Amino acid sequence: MQPDYAAILQTIYAEVQPLLPQGKVASYIPELSKVSAQHFGMAVYCLDGSAYKIGDSQQKFSLQSVTKLFALALAFSREGDAIWERVGREPSGNPFNSLVQLEYERGKPRNPFINAGALVIADILSARFVQSDIAVQQFARIISGEPSIDFDIAVAQSERQTAHRNYAIAHLMKDFGNLHNPVKTVIDSYCRQCSLTMTCTELAMAGSFLANHGSVPWSGQQILDASSSKRLNALMLTCGTYDAAGDFAYRVGLPAKSGVGGGILALVPGELAVAVWSPGLDATGNSLAGTYALERFTTLTARSIF
Amino acid sequence: MQPDYAAILQTIYAEVQPLLPQGKVASYIPELSKVSAQHFGMAVYCLDGSAYKIGDSQQKFSLQSVTKLFALALAFSREGDAIWERVGREPSGNPFNSLVQLEYERGKPRNPFINAGALVIADILSARFVQSDIAVQQFARIISGEPSIDFDIAVAQSERQTAHRNYAIAHLMKDFGNLHNPVKTVIDSYCRQCSLTMTCTELAMAGSFLANHGSVPWSGQQILDASSSKRLNALMLTCGTYDAAGDFAYRVGLPAKSGVGGGILALVPGELAVAVWSPGLDATGNSLAGTYALERFTTLTARSIF
Amino acid sequence: MQPDYAAILQTIYAEVQPLLPQGKVASYIPELSKVSAQHFGMAVYCLDGSAYKIGDSQQKFSLQSVTKLFALALAFSREGDAIWERVGREPSGNPFNSLVQLEYERGKPRNPFINAGALVIADILSARFVQSDIAVQQFARIISGEPSIDFDIAVAQSERQTAHRNYAIAHLMKDFGNLHNPVKTVIDSYCRQCSLTMTCTELAMAGSFLANHGSVPWSGQQILDASSSKRLNALMLTCGTYDAAGDFAYRVGLPAKSGVGGGILALVPGELAVAVWSPGLDATGNSLAGTYALERFTTLTARSIF
Amino acid sequence: MQPDYAAILQTIYAEVQPLLPQGKVASYIPELSKVSAQHFGMAVYCLDGSAYKIGDSQQKFSLQSVTKLFALALAFSREGDAIWERVGREPSGNPFNSLVQLEYERGKPRNPFINAGALVIADILSARFVQSDIAVQQFARIISGEPSIDFDIAVAQSERQTAHRNYAIAHLMKDFGNLHNPVKTVIDSYCRQCSLTMTCTELAMAGSFLANHGSVPWSGQQILDASSSKRLNALMLTCGTYDAAGDFAYRVGLPAKSGVGGGILALVPGELAVAVWSPGLDATGNSLAGTYALERFTTLTARSIF
Repeated sequence: MQPDYAAILQTIYAEVQPLLPQGKVASYIPELSKVSAQHFGMAVYCLDGSAYKIGDSQQKFSLQSVTKLFALALAFSREGDAIWERVGREPSGNPFNSLVQLEYERGKPRNPFINAGALVIADILSARFVQSDIAVQQFARIISGEPSIDFDIAVAQSERQTAHRNYAIAHLMKDFGNLHNPVKTVIDSYCRQCSLTMTCTELAMAGSFLANHGSVPWSGQQILDASSSKRLNALMLTCGTYDAAGDFAYRVGLPAKSGVGGGILALVPGELAVAVWSPGLDATGNSLAGTYALERFTTLTARSIF
Repeated sequence: MQPDYAAILQTIYAEVQPLLPQGKVASYIPELSKVSAQHFGMAVYCLDGSAYKIGDSQQKFSLQSVTKLFALALAFSREGDAIWERVGREPSGNPFNSLVQLEYERGKPRNPFINAGALVIADILSARFVQSDIAVQQFARIISGEPSIDFDIAVAQSERQTAHRNYAIAHLMKDFGNLHNPVKTVIDSYCRQCSLTMTCTELAMAGSFLANHGSVPWSGQQILDASSSKRLNALMLTCGTYDAAGDFAYRVGLPAKSGVGGGILALVPGELAVAVWSPGLDATGNSLAGTYALERFTTLTARSIF
Repeated sequence: MQPDYAAILQTIYAEVQPLLPQGKVASYIPELSKVSAQHFGMAVYCLDGSAYKIGDSQQKFSLQSVTKLFALALAFSREGDAIWERVGREPSGNPFNSLVQLEYERGKPRNPFINAGALVIADILSARFVQSDIAVQQFARIISGEPSIDFDIAVAQSERQTAHRNYAIAHLMKDFGNLHNPVKTVIDSYCRQCSLTMTCTELAMAGSFLANHGSVPWSGQQILDASSSKRLNALMLTCGTYDAAGDFAYRVGLPAKSGVGGGILALVPGELAVAVWSPGLDATGNSLAGTYALERFTTLTARSIF
Repeated sequence: MQPDYAAILQTIYAEVQPLLPQGKVASYIPELSKVSAQHFGMAVYCLDGSAYKIGDSQQKFSLQSVTKLFALALAFSREGDAIWERVGREPSGNPFNSLVQLEYERGKPRNPFINAGALVIADILSARFVQSDIAVQQFARIISGEPSIDFDIAVAQSERQTAHRNYAIAHLMKDFGNLHNPVKTVIDSYCRQCSLTMTCTELAMAGSFLANHGSVPWSGQQILDASSSKRLNALMLTCGTYDAAGDFAYRVGLPAKSGVGGGILALVPGELAVAVWSPGLDATGNSLAGTYALERFTTLTARSIF
């Protein structure tokens, strides 16, 4: 029996209100810091086509690292297992932008969801597409069914101007021979890619193919084969929420990908995709209210992969 | 429709034969190195009571790190979330016995499945039971339904004599105040705990409560509540196979716990527990043929949590 | 022309008074923490036999790491360059008791003045003498010309009870095969060795052979040949003051060895040995007033090796 | 009595011949790899004006990291102790271009002789001079008395094209706020500075002010006051030869600065400066024959600071 999603979203919406002031909006990208921490939106897209939403679910927000999932899915759909020669599949056990591990492991990033790994994916896409960021944008439009998905140029610019650590990471990988395109090209594309915006509703739809064995539910378009889709789910669970993946799996128990814009996409394989947005982050860089909302969602719906 | 498990096990058994010589039997515990890499056994225990087995599934083997799962389940059932004040829930991103991370994180182990974390769990159990190893043994008897589960004293002795790294870990945690009992007491108990032996059939039965919402399928005894059981599953997925958890999740897609004796326990929540044993290890310390067998098992049965 | 050492010591004595309350007495060995930070003593022993002293220069204090110098000199005099197969000669670049570097460098300590290296030296001595601590005591008596040099059993006991980090270091080296005697034997000897006490006057005399090409000035006994003596001086300069060796060389410009008891021995090669004691330490574990006193000493006497 | 330097140089020249093929010419800067490992030159400049030379002492070679000493002396002469707010004075205990330590210490390099520190010094000079590299060139001309000292543009270009690791370091420091000028400006200046060439004779003269209390011996020009000069000597001893400073001090016992071009400048304070060049490097990046030559030089002349 399907849970009463509408009622559950209302319960969650009420419960998160006191948490909203506790989160801290990301400040290292100046443009992102302008958003109020008070926002909260949530949307569910079931594979049967039914959809539910609450709060600021129709407001666009900066996807940031959530786009790493789309870029990875695109690269994986084109290059297959060859990508794993250049990026690993293990949790990092270190803050998401640490150079230490990258140096010890000689330029091969631990996984595609840390910045180093996402830069390698952007580099891989740059070899196949004229512009990797445009390719990710097109891909995002296809999987969300929303042709208006676009960049936020002000955010991209702001990130580019404060991208010294990403430059450091990219040059280090270049030094180890694991970046083939010019550093500036890769960073610029990556910053634009990160600036893509969506609403919760759009994000839930965009992620639904990963809950549906790789196929877009409303169109039947096969983005990834079922096995590959399952494998990306596994990667989301072990590496999708920065250095808090273990804790997130423990509390929420769903494959998920988060971003410092405050968005999180999570999946109940075979059933639904759920997107939540609240810009206030916890100490690990994940949306504070968003994580709590998903924890409550799995409890109230009795959905979990475990 | 239930897959034809008997046929699938036969297929897997045939497929793994060429892999057996490729693994390397653990040598750091001299007593373990005496086992032949040619062994392979596998057993499935379905929650409906049906069971399947093949190869050396009736032969006892050294559980080693698989016992960390039992010790954790026992400690968690008694102390609840209080244990997380002393041990984390994050993948380590470093070899399973590394001191580096432990020092940087000031004596709090990353998770209960690395040696440091297992020593903390043994320390927690030592505060509640006269002997933590006996407590784990009793617990293993209850969850497996097999009253003869016992230690292999020769292995325990052998491990104790080569336990310098575990001593180093324990003293470091003692220095940080995260070990309350005498170092020697904890190490001795831990070495005995690790020496517990089971057959694949027994191990599949012993793990089945974790696939059954925390309740022993044949007796109905509630070991953990459903939520806690689900959470241990999440922890197995993110941290259960040493530094290869990401790769294991990617390839196999099931919560699992492995040991250097060559055993692996994996779970299909709501359906079954499966145990495999083959002493030849891969470079990450997990059974080489065992990991492959589980990968084939999820493919052939189309079972996965993702 | 020889400086007016007596006047210079008086000047320094006056200058350090306001600094005494700023240092922090070592607290990790409970017995050491009982000493008042207000103490200050200083003694100069010139190779021509003249001697100068001021303040608490006749009071015994715990030598602690200063004894690492004596143990090294003794081991070097007996084993020669063979010791460098088991311990390096490089500054550590990390706090003096860090395990991280030791693990990365597979159990070979960076130098004989960090704890790991001193434990290896104690292990080397244990292979040649019945008790390495007694051997160091005898050696200290010979080089100081003071037959009453003895251990402080209360301090040794206190250190042994809080030696968890040293146990961790020793077990880690044992795991890497770089400790040949039982861990407990080495730690016990090392703790007793560290508990040796001297006065400033005695310490200046004990160090004078290193300023005198390896020969005890008053007896002519050749402890080390001139080249070996020169080499120990070099090692003191690069590694003798924990993680502050660069800063110490910059400020003081003399080979020196310090201890957490607040003592520092420094050398003007070819001229004199100077010992200072003040128990209040700075953030790097060196005597705060003692370091300042030596900085002033080299300025006022215009003595420096550079 | 002054040693017979001419005879000693001849002895050393004969002794190093069999060592020349054992060194490995630096290959990470392609232009440098074109030089033959067979070269060996050595020059002594005594403060009394007498000079001695042997072998390829009149051939220009790439100074590389030796220029870090000149840049530091220039910056120190202008900014004084203020430079230590942005760069430390401790040995690094890690390879000379490691990012790990820099990240842990939040963008403050350990000392001015590792690449990170040299980039900070270049950044400091860039704030005071129109072009920091030209400033270092002018300074090199003054201290060597040789107005023709110039860059090797081909080497500078070659280094700039392979400077990814230096870019990584610079961007990381920029991220931490410890680089004030644009990264490209600093890297370009630094690469040109490193490309300065000298002969052994010129280098010995250029370094002689540091053996002469900061004053150029033939002109009397005071570059640094005596105390500052002494302090740079101390820094050379503890940090001047990459990660081998401890070993170098042990073997040679003189303040020195080396470069991957195969040059080493060493000082006997109050007496002389000695320069050696042989492009074949040992595993630590120091000239293999050059280090040996200096070790022999201190033994045969009985000169050492210890």
